[in-house]
Order: sequence, then structure tokens, then C-alpha cells
Amino acid sequence: MLSVVIIGTGNVAQQLLRSWKNHEEVRVIGVVGRTGNKKHRLAGHSILPIETIKPQADIYIIAVNDSSIQTVSQQINHVDGLIVHTAGSIAIDVLKSHERRGVFYPLQTFNSNREIDLSQVPFFLEVNYEKDQKTLTRLAASLSEDINWLSSTKRKRLHLAAVFLNNFTNHLLYHSGKLCKELDQDVEVLYPLLNETLNKAMALGAYEAQTGPARRGDSEVIREHLELLNDPLQKQIYQILSDSIQSTYEN
Amino acid sequence: MLSVVIIGTGNVAQQLLRSWKNHEEVRVIGVVGRTGNKKHRLAGHSILPIETIKPQADIYIIAVNDSSIQTVSQQINHVDGLIVHTAGSIAIDVLKSHERRGVFYPLQTFNSNREIDLSQVPFFLEVNYEKDQKTLTRLAASLSEDINWLSSTKRKRLHLAAVFLNNFTNHLLYHSGKLCKELDQDVEVLYPLLNETLNKAMALGAYEAQTGPARRGDSEVIREHLELLNDPLQKQIYQILSDSIQSTYEN
Repeated sequence: MLSVVIIGTGNVAQQLLRSWKNHEEVRVIGVVGRTGNKKHRLAGHSILPIETIKPQADIYIIAVNDSSIQTVSQQINHVDGLIVHTAGSIAIDVLKSHERRGVFYPLQTFNSNREIDLSQVPFFLEVNYEKDQKTLTRLAASLSEDINWLSSTKRKRLHLAAVFLNNFTNHLLYHSGKLCKELDQDVEVLYPLLNETLNKAMALGAYEAQTGPARRGDSEVIREHLELLNDPLQKQIYQILSDSIQSTYEN
Repeated sequence: MLSVVIIGTGNVAQQLLRSWKNHEEVRVIGVVGRTGNKKHRLAGHSILPIETIKPQADIYIIAVNDSSIQTVSQQINHVDGLIVHTAGSIAIDVLKSHERRGVFYPLQTFNSNREIDLSQVPFFLEVNYEKDQKTLTRLAASLSEDINWLSSTKRKRLHLAAVFLNNFTNHLLYHSGKLCKELDQDVEVLYPLLNETLNKAMALGAYEAQTGPARRGDSEVIREHLELLNDPLQKQIYQILSDSIQSTYEN
């Protein structure tokens, strides 16, 4: 049995708490958070201030905003366990005040009101001391079948790929829905296309799956579309993505 | 029973032929294509030159490249049936040499080697003569449960929304996969995130579902990401989409 303290009460912390509830191999022995601005209980746990953190856990998981990781880690100065954070874009050395440090990064997007099946989610791990590899592997294996080791430098680039995949794609869905609403069409009219877009990209690969005016080099349709767009940011997005598609296929 | 002639042998034509094979209400009585540059048979049909087009069909469906629709339509000058095209961004009046003209636009992306279930795909219809509404409705209802009427002006804007949704999203998946491959990571490592991105956007709406550095206003991560990108087009895509996300949420 691994004992774990979770520091943080946000989306990642909540998902971990749900996934380790009544787990055979991992027991959460404490949840740390700022009291006052969160519910005092989370998934059956009391939320305790960082000053009262239990010193006997095997692993301390810092699941807070990227910019707070360093400060929070420096407040845990009386523990011997492995200390990890969960952030894709933050180097392991942000935890350098601790010799036993590591990273426990799930490549997924979390919202507090959505439960994710973590078993297929790839975890990217890193430790400072080789002897901690086994412990962090056990922790990840308690949740997922897909365990990987990656350096901070590479993880930062992987997180960048995830930003293109999730953040930017989602934002295009927002613009697409906005254009629909301007036509008094429900955004749901786009869902069959959205499903097929994703399934086709996974089946054929995105390079092969590409269609549309930019792919065909149809400059007449591109020109007309640009004229239809009033929002300057939408116009710029349309222009740069069309340029990029054309440049991808012209060679 | 409606009798149909399909003009074109590309992705849309092939999908329609598959969907109407042995259909109770629609019979394809001819397939027209340029011989020589395509297989001479398609889904059990001979491909015939346009000069030999049968004059007795109820509906002629022009499913060719946007830029060829007008020329092709002018070559069909001895028929009485309803003539429609399948293009989202082309106005009905491209067919103005025919009084009985219309549009039969499925909001979906088609590739020749992928079979699509059309029953959930929204069709957007338009006719010049009100009396043709019934015929075109029957044709669409033979394939789909989701039938809509939309003017050429609005359909052009809907097609623009579909470009944001499908073409641009797919291209971002391409960039994301490229960044993964540069790390020697298989693109499949992104699939759980991709699935959740889509499911979350449909469940919460894309506005609510947005996460990431631009959403949080984390200018430090944005700056680092921009430094990591060497490809000038990727840099521009990152910059404009981050600007657009920040501008969406700053109000």
C-alpha cells in the first residue's frame, strides 16, 4: 500500500481523489488546500492547511497552478517522502529544495465535473533519484496501463503538442459554434461532422484526412470566406491556418 | 421510387452510390464521369460520358469540384428533371441555366475509402421552384433524419463554420502529431486527450470546456512555448490562437 498526500483541490486533485477512492494499492492520507476559498471537504476528505501536513506519506503530489508549485513545495520542509508535481510544462527542478523529487504528468484535460477513466491515459514520469522510479511506477500503475518516462525538456514539448491538440482545437470549436449561432443554427448540427473529423484523423492520420478549400488550393472560396468574416481575429485565424495547410501540401 | 443520375465520381458521389445501393425509394439509373481518368465501374455502375446522359431521371445530382459545377450543368441541356449540386459554398444560381435547380448539401466530410452513416448527417436543401421542395425532401429523407432548408447566403456561412470545425481542427491535429513525432512519441499517445477534448466540448460547450495557458492568462508558459517553436507558421498559429482565446475570456 502506498500512502499519498494530495496538495491542491482543483481539477487534477479532484480526479485523483475520485480514482483512488477505496483503492487497493493507494491510500490518500491527507488533502491539503487553502481553507476558506474551497469546500472544506473533498471526496470524503477534510481539507487541511499546509502547516498541518502529515510527515509519514510515501508520496506528496502537488496539484496546484503552475505558478504556485515552487512556493508550495518550499512549505513542505519536514517530510522524507517523494514529492512530485503534475504539470506538463514545468521542469522537475522547480522542486529542487527536495532531493526526492519527481513529475507525475497525465496527458489529459480535466474539469471538476467530468470523471475521466484514467486507465487509458498516458502518464509521463520523471524522478531525480533512480531509486524512486519503482515507487512512482507503482503509483502510476495503480491508475493507468500507459506509463512512460520523459525528461522535463521533452515533456515541455509534449505539453505544447497537447496545447495544439486540446486548447486550440477546442477554441476552433468555439468559433465554429459561434458562426453557427449567428445563422440561428444550433451548434449540435455540427456534431456528426465533429465526430467524423476525429474518427477520420485517427483512422487515416491527419495528413491524409485533410480536405477543404485550402487543401484543394481553391483560392476563390478562401477569398469569399475571408470576405464573410467580420471578426478580425477570426479573419487572421482563417488566413494563417489556410496558409499553413497550403504550405503543408504544396511540396 | 425516385430515379437519380449522379454526375461525378469523387468522394460525395461514391458515398451516395453506396447509400442508395438496393434502396427501396431511390434508384440510381446512371453515373456520369470523365472516362479514362477513373475506374470505368463504380459501385456496380458503368461510368458514362456526359453526352449519353439519360433524359428521364427525376433528379440529376452534380457532385463535382466546386469550380466545375457551372460548366457541367451547362452540358446537361436536354433534361426536364430537377438539377442539384452538393456544394456548401456555391450558390444555387450557378445552375441558372436550369429553371428546376436546387442544392443538396450534406454537412459532412467524405473520403472515398470511408463509409459514413448518413442517417444522422444534417442535409441543407434549397430549390428555385417551391413545387420541387417535395421531391428534394423525399430524396434527402431516403438518407437522413435531419433535413433543413437554408438559403445560399446562409449555407455559405455554414460551410465556413464547417471549415473551422473540420479543416482547421484536422490541421491542428496534424501539427500536434508532428510535434509528437519530433519527440519520438507515437501520435497515438494523444488519442485519449483527443477523445476527451471532443466529448467535453460536446458535453459542456466549447466556451466552458476551454483550459490551458491562454485561458489562464499564463503569459510565462505562452512565452516559453513560443520560444520552443522553430517553424514560423506554427509560431504564428500559436500566437493568433492564444490571442483569440485571451480576447474571448478577458471580457
